[in-house]
Amino acid sequence: MINQTIFFSNNNVGIADTTTIAGPKEGEGPLKKYFHNILDDDLLNQKSYEKAETKIHVAAIRHMLNKNGMTAKDIDCVFAGDLLDEIIVSSYAMREFDIPFMGLFNACASFAEALIVGSSMIHGGLMNRVICSTSSHFSTAERQFRFPLELGTQRTPLSQWTVTGAGCTMLENNPELPIKLTCATIGKVIDYGVKDANDMGAAMLPAAMDTLKTHLKDTHRNPDYYDLILTGDLGDAASRLMKKLLKKEGIDIEEIHDDCGVLIFNREGQNVGQGGSGTACSNLVFNSYIYKEMLNKRFKKVLLMPTGALMSKTASLQRETIPGIAHAICVEVV
Amino acid sequence: MINQTIFFSNNNVGIADTTTIAGPKEGEGPLKKYFHNILDDDLLNQKSYEKAETKIHVAAIRHMLNKNGMTAKDIDCVFAGDLLDEIIVSSYAMREFDIPFMGLFNACASFAEALIVGSSMIHGGLMNRVICSTSSHFSTAERQFRFPLELGTQRTPLSQWTVTGAGCTMLENNPELPIKLTCATIGKVIDYGVKDANDMGAAMLPAAMDTLKTHLKDTHRNPDYYDLILTGDLGDAASRLMKKLLKKEGIDIEEIHDDCGVLIFNREGQNVGQGGSGTACSNLVFNSYIYKEMLNKRFKKVLLMPTGALMSKTASLQRETIPGIAHAICVEVV
Repeated sequence: MINQTIFFSNNNVGIADTTTIAGPKEGEGPLKKYFHNILDDDLLNQKSYEKAETKIHVAAIRHMLNKNGMTAKDIDCVFAGDLLDEIIVSSYAMREFDIPFMGLFNACASFAEALIVGSSMIHGGLMNRVICSTSSHFSTAERQFRFPLELGTQRTPLSQWTVTGAGCTMLENNPELPIKLTCATIGKVIDYGVKDANDMGAAMLPAAMDTLKTHLKDTHRNPDYYDLILTGDLGDAASRLMKKLLKKEGIDIEEIHDDCGVLIFNREGQNVGQGGSGTACSNLVFNSYIYKEMLNKRFKKVLLMPTGALMSKTASLQRETIPGIAHAICVEVV
Repeated sequence: MINQTIFFSNNNVGIADTTTIAGPKEGEGPLKKYFHNILDDDLLNQKSYEKAETKIHVAAIRHMLNKNGMTAKDIDCVFAGDLLDEIIVSSYAMREFDIPFMGLFNACASFAEALIVGSSMIHGGLMNRVICSTSSHFSTAERQFRFPLELGTQRTPLSQWTVTGAGCTMLENNPELPIKLTCATIGKVIDYGVKDANDMGAAMLPAAMDTLKTHLKDTHRNPDYYDLILTGDLGDAASRLMKKLLKKEGIDIEEIHDDCGVLIFNREGQNVGQGGSGTACSNLVFNSYIYKEMLNKRFKKVLLMPTGALMSKTASLQRETIPGIAHAICVEVV
């Protein structure tokens, strides 16, 4: 390890395939043509939204297996996470599969964590093929972290909209694959004292900046090494603030930065506040739009940087602040 | 990967040190002479038990650094988990350290998960020195998963007592260290339909049996390869049942099996039901008693098998069953 960054220098960690299942609202957004599947409704005839989210998570993994003609025995491990208490969605989803399971939690940065742990297993020759999956659901996250939906609470200007959906990345030990995961910077927990559970962007921004600066230092790269530096779910206001603050420090990412939370919805017409958020946000954007445009070589070097706000209802009620974390993973067409 | 088992065949994943902080009740139990630190009270002048558990988790990591004369920069990553919603104890503990962090959750099997991910990073040369830490607290877990403590609810015969404490294992890329982690079997989520949140042993037993049988098959070993097969927190009744069921299948572990939940308390005098449980249970027993007795060569080959019950309050209220998971990690004096 050079400081915080690990290098998958065996050049063997490839993306074999991706899949996504987007919720109805996400399916009406600007990325609709990129999603593999779009749901008509988000309750799926289940008795609760938690059960619906579990069903979506199961469907994403099953779709990945089916479209590749694979069964459980072709997958060495699933690395999965979600936003619910005790990550019950991932745990209950994995009841349906006869596949080893490791549950991960770094809030909305869990997708990065899954990719990093999966890549590390493959890089070291411990596993050959793994699935990294995450999910989130507007209706499970809102009522767990904020208010009962039935209250119809007015949304604040800096709030974001939790993305409904699930997605998987299948990683393979295969030097022939065109898109590789080449290195990763593992983030630290950073707390600037934000207490507003409706302003996730502010809570995660310091962590995103710290991880990005560390990544550039550890790799001796300038930002223009990348075609795209893609944060997970800072939302619009925090994204703009990040670019401004970085510019003051001499790091210009104005032209190459984007945010999955901004990309996934049409902020003008979809009433989503600052944009999307949630464990599925960076997952759905990366596994659909970004991966497909990397296959088309529109993007060749992408720094994917999912961000997480490490809070819980209990912590909020105990007046705790909300720390953030961000992990960066470098994805390259090689 | 040979089926579910990964082999750290570079023979470079060593245990550099361990530390434990046990709660007052644990400190009165049979392992008291093995713990590194014993608390006088379990609230530690904090305003909530959640904050107290966080303080204990911080203290364990700090103790590990201090006794080795290390600072944050000597540690590549902390892999940590706990039982609370959104693993807030681990996340908030990591605010105090300028160290990269990955949060893990497989309930009480999270300690195994931390050891496995940490070992994988070291085996592959991605990291040189990591800390694997977990914590739990009777008073945070009971009120989150079961009843408010103030109710004084009568405990059922099959209930267990969540262990209060935190511990760390420091792993190092160092072929010279006498105690190594040599392989691991990653468990699957297994659900036999148990619904009683006061009978964790029954929920986890099928997963423990599955992982053990898989481990023996994958490694072509007989149980007597080990001096000790140590489950995490099945408790007394489920441990006895496991031995009986395995014997029926021709696998005799009668003389070499023990359970951390049984070892950590004196069941006769401490009113703990079937024994201890919690993310700290296998951690405290392994990092004190087992590690010290491995250094003394009383145990030379130990299969550590933390078990987890994958439930949440929401899932219980929605009448879900409780699936289990167990991971096995082979620790050897070499």
